[in-house]
Amino acid sequence: MGAPMPKLRVVLVEPKIEGNIGAVARAMRNFDVTDLVLVRPCPVGEEAHRRAMDGASVLNSARNVQNLETAIADADLVIGTSGVETESEKKFARIAMSPRDLASHVSPFDGTVALLFGREDFGLLDDELRRCDLLVKVPASRDYPILNLSHAATIVLYELFASHSRRVGTREASALEKETLHKAFAGLLDATDYPAHKRVRTKVMFRRLIGRALPTKWEFHALMGVLQRATKRIRRLEAER
Amino acid sequence: MGAPMPKLRVVLVEPKIEGNIGAVARAMRNFDVTDLVLVRPCPVGEEAHRRAMDGASVLNSARNVQNLETAIADADLVIGTSGVETESEKKFARIAMSPRDLASHVSPFDGTVALLFGREDFGLLDDELRRCDLLVKVPASRDYPILNLSHAATIVLYELFASHSRRVGTREASALEKETLHKAFAGLLDATDYPAHKRVRTKVMFRRLIGRALPTKWEFHALMGVLQRATKRIRRLEAER
Repeated sequence: MGAPMPKLRVVLVEPKIEGNIGAVARAMRNFDVTDLVLVRPCPVGEEAHRRAMDGASVLNSARNVQNLETAIADADLVIGTSGVETESEKKFARIAMSPRDLASHVSPFDGTVALLFGREDFGLLDDELRRCDLLVKVPASRDYPILNLSHAATIVLYELFASHSRRVGTREASALEKETLHKAFAGLLDATDYPAHKRVRTKVMFRRLIGRALPTKWEFHALMGVLQRATKRIRRLEAER
Repeated sequence: MGAPMPKLRVVLVEPKIEGNIGAVARAMRNFDVTDLVLVRPCPVGEEAHRRAMDGASVLNSARNVQNLETAIADADLVIGTSGVETESEKKFARIAMSPRDLASHVSPFDGTVALLFGREDFGLLDDELRRCDLLVKVPASRDYPILNLSHAATIVLYELFASHSRRVGTREASALEKETLHKAFAGLLDATDYPAHKRVRTKVMFRRLIGRALPTKWEFHALMGVLQRATKRIRRLEAER
């Protein structure tokens, strides 16, 4: 195929049931994904290996880490999965796309994509979700939308595998560049005395927007230029007062 | 939704691992399917119920039958799932379709559709496959295409569910709102004395970025707020000079 493809990593955050870890490893093998990172997992033993079947190779090469930051340190795009849509004011942080939309967004991406799956009971916590560039949610029953962990992973990996809409790569901005962009956005909020209580969610809004738009390097530089220019102008005018 | 919808039935043929039966029941509940028929299953006990979680209702109302004919007697359409491309497909000139194609094929269908899943090890046998009107196969790794039974069922049920719940509007910003956003962006370029020769392409960059990101109404208002705030601050500081 030759076209750029994302390097997929599955990150399980504090999985509690070893059978699920094994089942995820099998699903990964089914969809040609090999990079598995476990953040503070339960012990992985016989049951995990039994469920992994031919995914044992994935399970055996999994890395255990102590915190999420280590798991995603070198990831260019961080995707969070969420089982429920909350009605709370935190909703802003939880506007999720479908696995299919995710697949078409991500498949031309040329970088490391970390897919985060949360705990079997509590999913991903708010500050973990805030770190995500995109959220994905499997459409499911209103009555019982909570999928088994390995089922959720299977659907997301299946959609990414099935998506063969490989457009020509467009030199996406790197993770580092994107962080610089987010800093520039934060800088503009500072310069405009943006209300403190709205800052976090406005920054998350911007992160999600950029996450979905997947800016090219050129777009990234152009947008940075506008934000920095506005900030500098405000700072200079203030200094002149 | 009101549109005609098939009545879906899941038929597991000689399942051997009770945990898989439970996991399938859970996946059915996740996708609003309740009719489960088990053909000569292994004993269903504690492990099946543990894995079923809130799908216990599906598990408890499952019917056990002694042969496939009973399971599909009243079905209007019988779909077989196969993990590998078998001789029988060629033999019976049945080409397996993808779960997605199946979903678009089946979702306007107004009748009972039986989805057959075979044994964990041998799948469906030739004479069982012969009884199927359609075959479906999950696209997967060439190296290891054999999915766990509940994973295969999850993907097929997910596709059928997703084809029916096609996004009921996601509060996207309207065209008019988006134009207002682009005016606000242009306003900020003005306020920062953005170089004239770069303005057109920078505005196009922003338009494309927003076009790809498909902002929700909330995101639209938040981003507008940031841009307008920066512009106003510059204008006010200029007036104070």
